[in-house]
Amino acid sequence: MTNTPPVTLDDVRDAAERIKGVAHRTPVLRSRTLDALVGAEVHLKCENLQRIGAFKFRGAYNAASRLSPGQLAAGIAAYSSGNHAQAVALAARELGSSAVILMPEDTPRVKRDATAGYGAEVLTYDRYTGDRVALGEAMAAERGLTLIPPYEHPHVIAGQGTAALELIEEAGELDALVVPVGGGGLLAGSATAAKGLDAGMRVIGVEPEAGDDTKRSLEAGHRVTIPVPRTIADGQAAETPGELTFSINQRLVDDILLVSDDEVRAAMRLAFERLKTVVEPSGATGLAAVLKGRVEGARRIGVILSGGNIDASRFAELCGD
Amino acid sequence: MTNTPPVTLDDVRDAAERIKGVAHRTPVLRSRTLDALVGAEVHLKCENLQRIGAFKFRGAYNAASRLSPGQLAAGIAAYSSGNHAQAVALAARELGSSAVILMPEDTPRVKRDATAGYGAEVLTYDRYTGDRVALGEAMAAERGLTLIPPYEHPHVIAGQGTAALELIEEAGELDALVVPVGGGGLLAGSATAAKGLDAGMRVIGVEPEAGDDTKRSLEAGHRVTIPVPRTIADGQAAETPGELTFSINQRLVDDILLVSDDEVRAAMRLAFERLKTVVEPSGATGLAAVLKGRVEGARRIGVILSGGNIDASRFAELCGD
Repeated sequence: MTNTPPVTLDDVRDAAERIKGVAHRTPVLRSRTLDALVGAEVHLKCENLQRIGAFKFRGAYNAASRLSPGQLAAGIAAYSSGNHAQAVALAARELGSSAVILMPEDTPRVKRDATAGYGAEVLTYDRYTGDRVALGEAMAAERGLTLIPPYEHPHVIAGQGTAALELIEEAGELDALVVPVGGGGLLAGSATAAKGLDAGMRVIGVEPEAGDDTKRSLEAGHRVTIPVPRTIADGQAAETPGELTFSINQRLVDDILLVSDDEVRAAMRLAFERLKTVVEPSGATGLAAVLKGRVEGARRIGVILSGGNIDASRFAELCGD
Repeated sequence: MTNTPPVTLDDVRDAAERIKGVAHRTPVLRSRTLDALVGAEVHLKCENLQRIGAFKFRGAYNAASRLSPGQLAAGIAAYSSGNHAQAVALAARELGSSAVILMPEDTPRVKRDATAGYGAEVLTYDRYTGDRVALGEAMAAERGLTLIPPYEHPHVIAGQGTAALELIEEAGELDALVVPVGGGGLLAGSATAAKGLDAGMRVIGVEPEAGDDTKRSLEAGHRVTIPVPRTIADGQAAETPGELTFSINQRLVDDILLVSDDEVRAAMRLAFERLKTVVEPSGATGLAAVLKGRVEGARRIGVILSGGNIDASRFAELCGD
């Protein structure tokens, strides 16, 4: 009996071929100041500069691009309050398909408008009473749409892994790869790419202190559920890891680190002032852990800055005096 | 009788050779959203990502690199409240020289610290009673240092022109090149590069409304002096154009546009939210003019984002709600 993993390095490489010329090959930033602060070479993969402002486009496009002509003609569905909504909307547009996105009623208008701006139909639900997964699946079934989930899908995970693949191709050998964790898709894809290329590379996930569901689950040896996390890192406010993502992360991830909201703010300010780049709270948790010296014994560190979707007013609230 | 201009395209090309591998070849950013808003292809040269966070390093390094071994051993001097201070400090360090920088007493501590952080000795003066040019020249003479002025020097101007040279090399033919104007060094260098490569390219300077000394001077046909400008674009708060820079700009520049502080804020917010990049007020004036549709009839526009040195608190003050 063979145990083929649900996602392999070859799957990530296939995804890289599919997204070529559609997704951006984002830059890898360096900063002498950052290196001096950390005492290591830090290579920052700027997924905040990806299309739609976050890595999510990679997975959504990879998954959507594998649908049949009939499925594309019928349309795509997704549920998301955040970056996955825009990612699926843009992927559908790029593939000549259509998208229906289910978003919470209280989603900031700017995010609804951005999603609608890519041509998607936006439906809303009450996040306090509705189950988005059940609602999304029912809506997709009723309208004959193909649902692209935010992380629980091998094609989504393989797509997310392409950021790490590009980072390692460009930066060369790394001692540690540091990745923010929400539902676990980016981490699972990154770990698949990293361990496939170099089994000795440490792969480290980072969660906000209040949203440590993946850390607890790895410690417990099974998926645990925590209360809805209160954190500024809204993209990482998961209550429990995905089933598929957890099975991959359990096998491949070396460690999960935690950061406080204040540490996330400090990382956002450093990115702003020294790197001149905009990172949203969830996108800055990996950098926050590295800045606090929590990634020990690594001479060459890769970090994924996973997204940059924060408006100037919210940044001012979080990072002003 | 031949009229050789004080700075030529060949001088800019020489400068480009000298700064190679020392200054960053900064990226040229594009944004579909920006193009759609403007109705033109906009190519943004990101000098906010240059070393020390602004184009100033190009000119300072080009000038410093031409000093004799004896001059470098004796040391370099500069007067500046802003980016030129850090530029000269870093250029001196890169060349194994030393720097003494004269800064106003009320310079924000972060800028003094950054300058000192590059190994420079920082002296201060009272900006309300002291004449920085006279003080700087006296100090340099007394201590045997070579003064590198912020814009009134052919090597400084040629160095600043390398940003436009790189932009045009990368973006290809442009209908218009849009450049912020303070003392006029960046504009003079940019115009020299642009007109040398393509005499038909329109070269447009942009000033804050309150700091329109170059516009008035070009209209008058001679350098005029205005009251100390009150504007958030502190790097462009010049009272009068430089003599050398004005003579070049008078010959080569097609037009000067003005932008309000509110328009500058809107450009900073757009750069933040859509391009995920940090631009200081003076660095955003070119983009502000383009966003307001003031660059008419151009299909392909190059813009220099000239600097990104603004701390998160100040950004929050200017661009929060």
